[in-house]
Amino acid sequence: MFAPVYFDHNATTPLDPVVREAMLPYLGERFGNASARHEYGRNTRRALDLAREQVATAVGAEPDEVVFVSGGSEANNLFLKGTAARLPPGLLAVSAAEHPSVLRPAAQLARQGWDVRHLAPAADGRLARDDWQATLALRPALVSVMLANNETGVLQDVAALAAQACSAGAIFHTDAVQALGRVPLNFRELNAAGVGAMTISGHKIGGPQGAAALIRDRRIDIEPQISGGGQEGGLRSGTENIAALVGFGLACERAVARRAEGAAHLDAMRRRLESALADLGATVFGAPDGRLPNTSYFALPGIDGETLVARLDRAGFAVASGSACSSNDHGPSATLLAMGVDADLARGAVRVSLGTGNTERQIDDFVFALKAMALNLRRLGAVALSG
Amino acid sequence: MFAPVYFDHNATTPLDPVVREAMLPYLGERFGNASARHEYGRNTRRALDLAREQVATAVGAEPDEVVFVSGGSEANNLFLKGTAARLPPGLLAVSAAEHPSVLRPAAQLARQGWDVRHLAPAADGRLARDDWQATLALRPALVSVMLANNETGVLQDVAALAAQACSAGAIFHTDAVQALGRVPLNFRELNAAGVGAMTISGHKIGGPQGAAALIRDRRIDIEPQISGGGQEGGLRSGTENIAALVGFGLACERAVARRAEGAAHLDAMRRRLESALADLGATVFGAPDGRLPNTSYFALPGIDGETLVARLDRAGFAVASGSACSSNDHGPSATLLAMGVDADLARGAVRVSLGTGNTERQIDDFVFALKAMALNLRRLGAVALSG
Repeated sequence: MFAPVYFDHNATTPLDPVVREAMLPYLGERFGNASARHEYGRNTRRALDLAREQVATAVGAEPDEVVFVSGGSEANNLFLKGTAARLPPGLLAVSAAEHPSVLRPAAQLARQGWDVRHLAPAADGRLARDDWQATLALRPALVSVMLANNETGVLQDVAALAAQACSAGAIFHTDAVQALGRVPLNFRELNAAGVGAMTISGHKIGGPQGAAALIRDRRIDIEPQISGGGQEGGLRSGTENIAALVGFGLACERAVARRAEGAAHLDAMRRRLESALADLGATVFGAPDGRLPNTSYFALPGIDGETLVARLDRAGFAVASGSACSSNDHGPSATLLAMGVDADLARGAVRVSLGTGNTERQIDDFVFALKAMALNLRRLGAVALSG
Repeated sequence: MFAPVYFDHNATTPLDPVVREAMLPYLGERFGNASARHEYGRNTRRALDLAREQVATAVGAEPDEVVFVSGGSEANNLFLKGTAARLPPGLLAVSAAEHPSVLRPAAQLARQGWDVRHLAPAADGRLARDDWQATLALRPALVSVMLANNETGVLQDVAALAAQACSAGAIFHTDAVQALGRVPLNFRELNAAGVGAMTISGHKIGGPQGAAALIRDRRIDIEPQISGGGQEGGLRSGTENIAALVGFGLACERAVARRAEGAAHLDAMRRRLESALADLGATVFGAPDGRLPNTSYFALPGIDGETLVARLDRAGFAVASGSACSSNDHGPSATLLAMGVDADLARGAVRVSLGTGNTERQIDDFVFALKAMALNLRRLGAVALSG
């Protein structure tokens, strides 16, 4: 079977074969409920403990700061709703470019009496300084700003933001799902700066879908969102998904250990790509010097992003036109509009998110295909509007 | 390696090897985010659609009545909190023998202004008629009664209860996690009788951990508990765990298709076991004629359940002393106490939950070991209290 070139690693990543091997016994003879008091239960409990240590070590946290959940969306919901439930309603500030799993819970909290403020980004995707300072003056109770944006790859200086938010009396959370394994990430340092909690996820780093964590300062009071048998220190009940958590633990360990060696390869591929994009007259969105090493979010003026993604798909390249976090969302990217990008240009947005398994040859093939399509679509565009 | 005999299928089941085979491609080359609009995304979307059809067909529901979640605890929380959030606070009635993932959310709702009533069981584990009628007279807004109890295996006549609750104006939910694949289960029939929603889970039926569903009448208004990208019709956001859902779909299909042929084998094994238990003077809890075919929950007078479970574990038999849903819960079973069982006898409770992979030979070996232990422990008991 012909396998298309995969350039959509910010949506999900292929499972690392080493991680897969480690998971297989737990989909076989090493089954068991980790709460059971017999040999099967103890085996899975040990695997769970190891996974928790691996995750903690990889991100510079303590094992008992790790709350295992089923995904990044659940972790973001747990932090926002769980922390808000233990506070009197106040001001919640989230960046306008957050993932929907932060924006939607914020909207739910707004209906429960919270004031919600969307922090405006500057043109480069970083938080606009004026709006940030104005928000801090309003003394928010909760702040959530993602470390690396899923669409643009733009990095926020979360340590500095958290320190300021903390001084203003806020509890600070960061969605670090896209950052893990791609930039250095250390909860101990972030926590010292003022970050109270951080979301990470397995399937963005070569681990399986279905496993993620909220890493949190134990002093933060959080109401469980899934209550029951009392697993995860009472913060997240339900029989643990052992195979997925075993994979998540090892994926964290490997993604962090191999990050530096992979960074040069990603950087070389992206330079090659973005140099060709510049030749094509593309606009690359987001701060040139402060983005994830694997992400290029760009538009070719006059060419519709959806159309381009569909043609690239037929040509054997899997890329995204938007955040790919919801299949129902077809308008121009809210993140780009918030950054002040013209709506017509925003409709052209295409995201290439690389993985270390990609090759420079794949970049060259992609550029070749893109050039031909751009020429063709622009010629058509001179006759009719592209669909 | 010596593999202990596994008699703890109500805690979790080994993964059906056929299900495992079907999952493996989705832990390999068939990866992808089901929301992505390219070949990888479409492949996983198709797999997700098929899994939803398999689950729906297996339980007599429509695909759009299926809400995929990460586990039974999540489904129970979603129904209780999600439905309560869209209603004015009123009376919530749950049976006293519910799983903690029903009892704890009920306690959280009690702190938010709901009246919570625990429906008393009769001595046989079924709901006590007087208490049930008295509760209906109070016109509950929400009722949750599990179809089959995880500890005792006692079955409730959920269709009849739902019809009465519905007439009294309540929305009725049943936790059918232990019932699926073990007794006939048809949502269309239950829904016609008055059941509004039903919880099922993968890892109790030979499927993987990490996949479950709330099957629900679409007319019930439910507030999402994990919001974000809008997956599952907006009721449960987050990138879908494709491999687990593929396994869940096939496991539902197979568990239901093979239920009848397995029932005779389970019945024969359990008769053999319970006949030997009677010889040993054991009390078997719950209605003799209305229990799951795989579950025997019993106590040997004068012998501590924890001690017996530990000795059986050392002898190579994996059984449970309680619900095994929480490793922190060491008191006598609240379910047994609610049924009026003497606390001393309740402390002796041991649960054997069989699977179709067990054999009559394993039952005989177990009975042989149990007899020797009972003799030994009773002899010790004559000298000192058992630990």
